[in-house]
Amino acid sequence: MDKKVLDISPIRFSDDELWLLDQTKLPGEEVYIKTETKEDMWDAIYHLKVRGAPAIGVAAAYGLYIDCKSYAGNDIEGFLSHVKTSAEYLNSARPTAVNLSWALNRIASGLEDRKFASVAEAKEWIKAEAVKIHEEDVAACIKMGEYGLSLLKPGMGILTHCNAGTIATAKYGTCLAPIYLGHERGYDFKVYADETRPLLQGARLTAWELNKAGVDVTLICDNMASTVMKNGWIDAVVVGCDRMAANGDGANKIGTSGVAILAKEYGIPFYMYVPTSTIDMNTPTGDNIHIELRKGEEIYEMWYEKPMAPAGVKTYNPSFDVTANEYITAVITEKGIVRPPYDVNLKKLMEATEVNI
Amino acid sequence: MDKKVLDISPIRFSDDELWLLDQTKLPGEEVYIKTETKEDMWDAIYHLKVRGAPAIGVAAAYGLYIDCKSYAGNDIEGFLSHVKTSAEYLNSARPTAVNLSWALNRIASGLEDRKFASVAEAKEWIKAEAVKIHEEDVAACIKMGEYGLSLLKPGMGILTHCNAGTIATAKYGTCLAPIYLGHERGYDFKVYADETRPLLQGARLTAWELNKAGVDVTLICDNMASTVMKNGWIDAVVVGCDRMAANGDGANKIGTSGVAILAKEYGIPFYMYVPTSTIDMNTPTGDNIHIELRKGEEIYEMWYEKPMAPAGVKTYNPSFDVTANEYITAVITEKGIVRPPYDVNLKKLMEATEVNI
Repeated sequence: MDKKVLDISPIRFSDDELWLLDQTKLPGEEVYIKTETKEDMWDAIYHLKVRGAPAIGVAAAYGLYIDCKSYAGNDIEGFLSHVKTSAEYLNSARPTAVNLSWALNRIASGLEDRKFASVAEAKEWIKAEAVKIHEEDVAACIKMGEYGLSLLKPGMGILTHCNAGTIATAKYGTCLAPIYLGHERGYDFKVYADETRPLLQGARLTAWELNKAGVDVTLICDNMASTVMKNGWIDAVVVGCDRMAANGDGANKIGTSGVAILAKEYGIPFYMYVPTSTIDMNTPTGDNIHIELRKGEEIYEMWYEKPMAPAGVKTYNPSFDVTANEYITAVITEKGIVRPPYDVNLKKLMEATEVNI
Repeated sequence: MDKKVLDISPIRFSDDELWLLDQTKLPGEEVYIKTETKEDMWDAIYHLKVRGAPAIGVAAAYGLYIDCKSYAGNDIEGFLSHVKTSAEYLNSARPTAVNLSWALNRIASGLEDRKFASVAEAKEWIKAEAVKIHEEDVAACIKMGEYGLSLLKPGMGILTHCNAGTIATAKYGTCLAPIYLGHERGYDFKVYADETRPLLQGARLTAWELNKAGVDVTLICDNMASTVMKNGWIDAVVVGCDRMAANGDGANKIGTSGVAILAKEYGIPFYMYVPTSTIDMNTPTGDNIHIELRKGEEIYEMWYEKPMAPAGVKTYNPSFDVTANEYITAVITEKGIVRPPYDVNLKKLMEATEVNI
């Protein structure tokens, strides 16, 4: 086997500079943008230049550091207050992904706890913590990939929705990590990527990164998932997650819940990849997850020469939906694989170091 | 109530001239194109300028007349052979919709049976038969609308997929007929239209015609159907059909089978509107229906300035899927409403004048 090794990293931090792969330019152009202020970062998150729950967490952590390092004063109290304000500002860029608030809180509250005497020390710690969050995410993805791969066999057909790949994380991805690890080992998966309307993350991003890595990928429209399943081409569904509630209900890109229901109907296992940073034990069920509504223009403004829908048409454009826990065959985390009942087993997971429940 | 009366007719035949509403130009432009040769008609059907199973049948019947009227000779045998060849040619434009072959066969075999002595007489009969097919379709749509309306209540939320509306038929549509009839009577339906990728018939056509008729319509992406159902906004799903097999399996626009599975899961009735001309008793089950595969470019070539998917991406683009009979709550035809078991009850329907099974 001579399979390509994955070489795509969407967040690059070196020499105190932060560069983000602008995902809105893919697949046509591979452009990295320098991110120098918290406003740059807010804009990058809001406009989906960086996206995917884990990547947003990593980027926001660096964003907070980039903002704080330019703080001019020497008063630690003023600095702490500045960090808090900046974290709140960055956190407002997108409401659904818990990793955003998780990463920002980890830094803000960790800083409070440590009671640094000097601003310089505090800045160094924030930088180190951001790098740590980054490195931990790469390690978590590899772990998820290994656990996930244990559920798959060579030659399988695998359907995925949206993009929870290498560019949605620090590297490797969540639900695509087993695909990449398996690919490097000659598993020859046949991946089907839902295009994922309205913003086409599946077509633009998943098909792009799998193609680039040499994985066999076929692009379909979202509404073709039922047919490829019925054709017997799909042995497993793998998806990411933006926020999982304590009972195992998982919010992910709009359309995920429909894919899960189809998978159940066709008897295909449905695996949700959820780093523990994405599990929110303070949210009891999916009903408590706030779902971001976005502008209707995302649905009908794609063509340049002719309208896609009649002028003034009413739209409904939720960015996410919640997949009820009953449709999720297993939750794959960096600590191990969790199976139902999720209300009991996610609690065990969060308390344990490593599990296979 | 002062509701607008529907005034959209996609196929216009008068003074021996045939004009088709070019549906590829909607919703931006309302352009009627004159159709003067069988090649014009083949092109119009193939390129979806005229689409929707019943409309294709009506248009093809007129197309056959338009072609045959210019036949120069006076030998009836030569004329019959010309008609047969032209019918076969027109029938090759699209493989899935049975109405195309149904309408062409009705004329070609009716002509054989009648044994006209002169070509002039034969031409007149073809013209009259085409007009009859047209008028029968309008009447069938109104009938389907009345039967369908008996299953709905004022204020209901209704989801539809693709376009089986007035422009998919001679007038009123199949599954949208009850919406229009109800609208004229003040039913105040709230319609949700799936955009229907890849060609966006829901966004471009259904949203356009419902909007124009003053019906409350909300456009969603296909993958949002699960969410609007879960929100409790949908009381019934109505869809058309391109070919129904003898056992009640129904081929319709790609994505229909997925909507049907979701409806079943959420306990929402799923109604398929099927004029008897669309029921093919010679096709035993859905497995015997030939599904048209179309070019991948339809999926990824929509944006003018940047690619929607990586260059050379592999695609799978079936134009239709088959909804298994177990997901269909009732089949609404112009002869009445049919319920399971379909293998028995469709047979009864085809033999009866009017039924409610």
